[in-house]
Amino acid sequence: MKNTIHRIALIGFGTVGQSLAKIIAAKNADLKQLRHTELRIVAIATPGKGSLYHPDGLDISALFTALEKDGTFAGYPDSAGLERGMDNLPLIRDTNADTVVEVSHTDMNSGQPALDHCRTALAHGKNVVTSNKGPVALAYADLSALAAANGVRFLFESTVTAGTPSLRLARRALAGNEITEMRGILNGTTNFILSEMEAGKSYADALAQAQSLGYAEADPTADVEGIDALAKVLIIANTVMGCALKKDEISCRGISHLTADDIAAAKAAGKRWKLIGQVKKAGGQTTASVQPVLLPLSDPLAQVMGTTNAVTYRTDLLGDVTLIGAGAGGIETAAGLLADILAI
Amino acid sequence: MKNTIHRIALIGFGTVGQSLAKIIAAKNADLKQLRHTELRIVAIATPGKGSLYHPDGLDISALFTALEKDGTFAGYPDSAGLERGMDNLPLIRDTNADTVVEVSHTDMNSGQPALDHCRTALAHGKNVVTSNKGPVALAYADLSALAAANGVRFLFESTVTAGTPSLRLARRALAGNEITEMRGILNGTTNFILSEMEAGKSYADALAQAQSLGYAEADPTADVEGIDALAKVLIIANTVMGCALKKDEISCRGISHLTADDIAAAKAAGKRWKLIGQVKKAGGQTTASVQPVLLPLSDPLAQVMGTTNAVTYRTDLLGDVTLIGAGAGGIETAAGLLADILAI
Repeated sequence: MKNTIHRIALIGFGTVGQSLAKIIAAKNADLKQLRHTELRIVAIATPGKGSLYHPDGLDISALFTALEKDGTFAGYPDSAGLERGMDNLPLIRDTNADTVVEVSHTDMNSGQPALDHCRTALAHGKNVVTSNKGPVALAYADLSALAAANGVRFLFESTVTAGTPSLRLARRALAGNEITEMRGILNGTTNFILSEMEAGKSYADALAQAQSLGYAEADPTADVEGIDALAKVLIIANTVMGCALKKDEISCRGISHLTADDIAAAKAAGKRWKLIGQVKKAGGQTTASVQPVLLPLSDPLAQVMGTTNAVTYRTDLLGDVTLIGAGAGGIETAAGLLADILAI
Repeated sequence: MKNTIHRIALIGFGTVGQSLAKIIAAKNADLKQLRHTELRIVAIATPGKGSLYHPDGLDISALFTALEKDGTFAGYPDSAGLERGMDNLPLIRDTNADTVVEVSHTDMNSGQPALDHCRTALAHGKNVVTSNKGPVALAYADLSALAAANGVRFLFESTVTAGTPSLRLARRALAGNEITEMRGILNGTTNFILSEMEAGKSYADALAQAQSLGYAEADPTADVEGIDALAKVLIIANTVMGCALKKDEISCRGISHLTADDIAAAKAAGKRWKLIGQVKKAGGQTTASVQPVLLPLSDPLAQVMGTTNAVTYRTDLLGDVTLIGAGAGGIETAAGLLADILAI
């Protein structure tokens, strides 16, 4: 059987983009054998490392060799047909890529520049796969309509719980069920902090540890105030539960007000505080929130510790279905991108 | 957009078949609107209730009205084109059904009569959807090759963890990952007995309660000795992990030797006995077992209580991914059949 060649343009080449490239290099032989599919990275655009395009595909190991030298693609070997220095939008529009993988550094409030990248790609008949929450949280309806109008796909498994397939579970595997409620631990940083506080740390010490391990940023606001979880609630509600929620319709409270005493009191009562994102549909009404919730230990979500994420869907036929897995990480996020690419 | 009509022949009309008919009746309006698909039950064959075939579809509410009268289809109203009394194999072969849903009462050792039903349907170009473990555990390779040769599908989500999509999660949603290990609580009856024993009951009392609630049969051997879990281990290993295991290559020990003292000692040590089905691939070798395992409470599987089932897949990219949900029940099993039908 002849292999299908699937050509990819990467917009952004940070941790996630590099992880995807490494996975593709490692898995291509298996993909050819098992799925008769060959993945080729034909183009990469970055703000600081340069950009490369070759219609026959780039050599992944040569990319990393070049980066090791001076952190840019300057040392990537020349060859007939190689183009350097294309800007993002021409590289999205005018290369032979079938799919644009959008993993640029993006502002969560505006969704830019990822939003423009997605629009341009879809409008020019390219599939889009992204791990950027912004475009999905802010413009899912527009972008999915644009994809449908151009006969291409817009996929974004990695925007929620990294590659742990919480969206594909709901969209595909639970087909035929109506999902009436979702409750999830959607932010690993806050779950790590709460776990450390239960082990005896103060909020400040637990946060400092999360920062030193790279789980929390220097400004931890987006995590600890629930803003990151809120974006994921929005994505789940609008993309798999058929809602049309807007950001300001979701009530949001983080964990920064919880004290060591609160955590200890919960523990003494056989319960546990978790930062829970929730969407509930009942009687034609949808309510959604992000807030700390005191869970009994018998709740599967109460047992999810550290940076692990989890989602419980309540369904009409199957009752509760819970998925637990990694919620962050370069490889784990790239795994979701790969699953999306293979689904195309 | 015009609706696609999908015609179904049901082989068997016990709890699961009846649940599927009720779900189809309840969901058809939604399926037409959301998926432009209309499901029609055109034929039903049963050993005791009779059999019916109408190429334009049977009236589901009239089926139940007839059953309420005398437990058979005798009272189902006559109409032009209705055929009564067809045998199983002609009804599988010679009706206009696109898909045969095989939910007959079947012997686990021989896989019959379901195995013959599946073979006949696939050989005659009909998709097969089944909740019968026998054909999948015993003849997956043959049946999937027969399906491929005839351009149809052979699907069986409900054979493991009822409709909780443990197979589709692995086959579809985890695409791109290599699954190196599976550990699961695959039998709800034994998990219920172990949960009750931890609450203070003896093995005999817990078993008696499981029997009185209808979770365990009068002869509980298949559940308590691990035979049911073994069939599911075989299905997971061979259908989603690429193994070619045979039944007698899986070591199997049930829970009937566990005493109240064993359970109490585990509890005192902060651990919990669970009947775990496991498949592990390492260094070209595959090992598989069903046995009671003493789990630390931090293991997500340790927290799964009562009749609930759970599966943890260990993957190369995502680490551990755990799915928790219902493992039995008429509606829950029928939900898996429906998901398979919609996947076709």
